[in-house]
Amino acid sequence: MSEKSVFDFYPTRTSSECKLVPRTDPVVYSDSFSILSRERINFFKENGFLVFDNLFSSTEVNVLFNELTSLCNDESKKTLPQFILEESDNEVRSIFEIHKLSKLYDKLSRDKRLLGVVDQLLGSQVYLHQSRVNLKPGFDGKEFYWHSDFETWHSEDGMPNMRAVSCSIALTPNYEFNGPLMVVPGSHKKFVSCGGITPDSHYKQSLKRQEIGTPSKEILNKMVQDGGIKSIKGNAGSVVFFDCNLMHGSNGNISPYPRSNVFFVFNSIHNSLQEPFCGLAPRPNYIASRNFEPLQPFEDSLSFES
Amino acid sequence: MSEKSVFDFYPTRTSSECKLVPRTDPVVYSDSFSILSRERINFFKENGFLVFDNLFSSTEVNVLFNELTSLCNDESKKTLPQFILEESDNEVRSIFEIHKLSKLYDKLSRDKRLLGVVDQLLGSQVYLHQSRVNLKPGFDGKEFYWHSDFETWHSEDGMPNMRAVSCSIALTPNYEFNGPLMVVPGSHKKFVSCGGITPDSHYKQSLKRQEIGTPSKEILNKMVQDGGIKSIKGNAGSVVFFDCNLMHGSNGNISPYPRSNVFFVFNSIHNSLQEPFCGLAPRPNYIASRNFEPLQPFEDSLSFES
Repeated sequence: MSEKSVFDFYPTRTSSECKLVPRTDPVVYSDSFSILSRERINFFKENGFLVFDNLFSSTEVNVLFNELTSLCNDESKKTLPQFILEESDNEVRSIFEIHKLSKLYDKLSRDKRLLGVVDQLLGSQVYLHQSRVNLKPGFDGKEFYWHSDFETWHSEDGMPNMRAVSCSIALTPNYEFNGPLMVVPGSHKKFVSCGGITPDSHYKQSLKRQEIGTPSKEILNKMVQDGGIKSIKGNAGSVVFFDCNLMHGSNGNISPYPRSNVFFVFNSIHNSLQEPFCGLAPRPNYIASRNFEPLQPFEDSLSFES
Repeated sequence: MSEKSVFDFYPTRTSSECKLVPRTDPVVYSDSFSILSRERINFFKENGFLVFDNLFSSTEVNVLFNELTSLCNDESKKTLPQFILEESDNEVRSIFEIHKLSKLYDKLSRDKRLLGVVDQLLGSQVYLHQSRVNLKPGFDGKEFYWHSDFETWHSEDGMPNMRAVSCSIALTPNYEFNGPLMVVPGSHKKFVSCGGITPDSHYKQSLKRQEIGTPSKEILNKMVQDGGIKSIKGNAGSVVFFDCNLMHGSNGNISPYPRSNVFFVFNSIHNSLQEPFCGLAPRPNYIASRNFEPLQPFEDSLSFES
């Protein structure tokens, strides 16, 4: 590989050691309080996430959910690389690039309710680094182990700095029973440089069960001692925005209640991808987009007519 | 096998069909309100469980927890049949017959705070059908899928009627994060006759991951629609008593908090085991005791000196 053009502030997977590294990037990039109040901004800086109850109406959620069900029931689509199936039973675990598979989800990804918040946090226009739906079916939904998204995006996708925000929209109620998102408040302030070496085409395994790029038990213990755990529960239509470096995960789900969330990752156009810092080939575009065009807000009311 | 001497009110695992069967047995067998109030008794009849916060002191819990840690750290014990290890990493998942492996746990199993409640619910003296500790370690504790204990005890152990109560004592806090016990209130009023046929020595597999003897998704959905889900959270030292036929389970645990609970199953001396209704050889004594001697209450204050 050629020499890196961008300095690596966050080296990871370079040895067997897992250690904490200071975050050198800001958490919030603008001084504006246009949409988010000072209180909300301070909460995000301190905790690394923000929850909005019922940001989308039940009508909107129903339309989105039905669209998702249609996609999942289309057996012919299951062979697309965008479809990640569970290891055990071939049920759909995740669908990537949902905004390209559905006009409705394209509109959603540009909804002004989302972009307004994200632009303010990141202080710039943004593009869509990744879109996905995570389905955690009832009865045997599998866990997502603790990780910082940025660790992977930096290492495997070449995202240079922490200037991206994830947004998770609940399409089903998130109860304590069905494996809601769990975050470690404040954990975004340090970077966990993980042990291990990235294998070739790591994503083929890691999207089913991640092991490389996860913190050691010792460091996770320390982070949870410091910040505790907060589980993000709420009605369908609720939205959580969280910093790209926030430690998060979710337990499995034996309850009959499915748990389905849409994820959009918005990255600043000033933070576009370089060569992966792990030195391997980049992941496919459907997982880490290399189209850095700024998103055009969808200004109309979201009637969701396709 | 010889003809059954006891009529099988609760046939199960006789075909591929899973169906609901009425419960013909009472839930509470005495008319006394000596220890439990009428309100508590009515709650138990209706919901199938009763929670007592902090029934054991933190001092008592510490002593019990330390004893458990010693047992788990004793590598020589891991080869005992009473020790059930996780499929994935050989960590201790459960220890059976803990009251025989530890004097402390023997005393605990006869503690008058437990026996007082159980005697009142079952209206008779009781013996210990089973004792175990379930350890759900932090980071990768596995789930326990939905089941009614009675279904297994009836089918595989020959317990004729529903006249047994389980008691779970929390040795660690049970949070929403670490896979607490989840119950379906009211589900004890019907019996789920499960599909499938019991394989020989089924317990060797089912104690690691149960599949036979679990309800269909359809019936579980119906039960949860009717009764919802209640997760039993609480401090270490809290105790839940639940009916032998209550549908329950628990999710996995990726949190750093281990979740360890002691289970005692008290069965009425008038409900002692017959031949297993599945027609196979009975499970070993350490899982389903055939010593039907009534328990002698441990009357002294539980100083827990060994």
